[in-house]
Amino acid sequence: MKKFAFALFAVALAAVACSPAPDQSGNAALETIFNRKSVRSYTEQALSSQQIETLLRAAMCAPSGMNMQPWRFVVVTDPQVRNALGGLSAKASAVFVVCGETMMKGRPAEEGAEAPMVPNGNWNADCAAATENLLLAAEAIGLGAVWTACYPYEERMNQVRTVLGLPEGVTPYCVVPVGYPAGDDQPKDKWKPENIHYDRW
Amino acid sequence: MKKFAFALFAVALAAVACSPAPDQSGNAALETIFNRKSVRSYTEQALSSQQIETLLRAAMCAPSGMNMQPWRFVVVTDPQVRNALGGLSAKASAVFVVCGETMMKGRPAEEGAEAPMVPNGNWNADCAAATENLLLAAEAIGLGAVWTACYPYEERMNQVRTVLGLPEGVTPYCVVPVGYPAGDDQPKDKWKPENIHYDRW
Repeated sequence: MKKFAFALFAVALAAVACSPAPDQSGNAALETIFNRKSVRSYTEQALSSQQIETLLRAAMCAPSGMNMQPWRFVVVTDPQVRNALGGLSAKASAVFVVCGETMMKGRPAEEGAEAPMVPNGNWNADCAAATENLLLAAEAIGLGAVWTACYPYEERMNQVRTVLGLPEGVTPYCVVPVGYPAGDDQPKDKWKPENIHYDRW
Repeated sequence: MKKFAFALFAVALAAVACSPAPDQSGNAALETIFNRKSVRSYTEQALSSQQIETLLRAAMCAPSGMNMQPWRFVVVTDPQVRNALGGLSAKASAVFVVCGETMMKGRPAEEGAEAPMVPNGNWNADCAAATENLLLAAEAIGLGAVWTACYPYEERMNQVRTVLGLPEGVTPYCVVPVGYPAGDDQPKDKWKPENIHYDRW
């Protein structure tokens, strides 16, 4: 009986630990955020062009510093190119390589002068927000995806640059394999109240 | 009549330009992504602690490189601290300052040795993804929010560090004022097919 009570307590505790904030169940958008997981195994089913467009539309809805929209997308379905990207990209039906234009037009030195190119300090934030939108949209339409890093790892960046023939000024930010989930990947519970401070640190 | 036909055509065109991919209307999660906008004016209504928790839970559901979860959150409702943060933070009911631990434990030089601290190359990507989740969760529960930059702008970072008393090793990434929308902020249409490439650049 004690054992049973303990088991019941453990189950109740687990339910509390994993549940979203109590008043928000039934909110499909929140549920998508809470249920998104890194999906690393895929069936061989191809994505439709409509699914691909949906993911790209979601990505381009991300916020963008000074509305520069520095994101660029290379959608790879060609198996040869996917293989050359390696890792999970070889296995997923489609791979979304999120890239960024790292420079933008600055203020001209004087009126009428040509605008100089200056670094866009927000390019990678914008690319990251676009990537998160893409991952959530994949979850929302029953697909599975995973964010694999590229920037700031030089070796990986150079590989992706070469495989995709990226022009100068365009930096590969991350690589997102997407497909129909084949396994049983589950979201991680990352809720940690100790990571929260109030008013001051 | 010609004028009317043209107006009708223009309306139809606008509807196409702004609409999500055709098969996805009715998907609440996608609609939240498509409807998220930067909200810069707020009523004086305070957020409930449950709303604040929901936003934080959403943020902590973001993907994280090597599952390091380097994000830290300072939630500011104290008007004095909000004023000290300045700008829109002075006006919003709550301000979420997303910070990151920029270092992580590396591999020890030899077995049994202490693990050295090394830079976490993913810290800002993780913070950006958490921020986007927070913005989407705000949209999902009827609140308005806006991403204002902090990292990598030294002057702003130092201001936020000082106001919040951030410890060494914790970098302020961005500042997100949140409140009940007071105006009529609308999402921008950022759909640009010219930003997409297929298989290679």
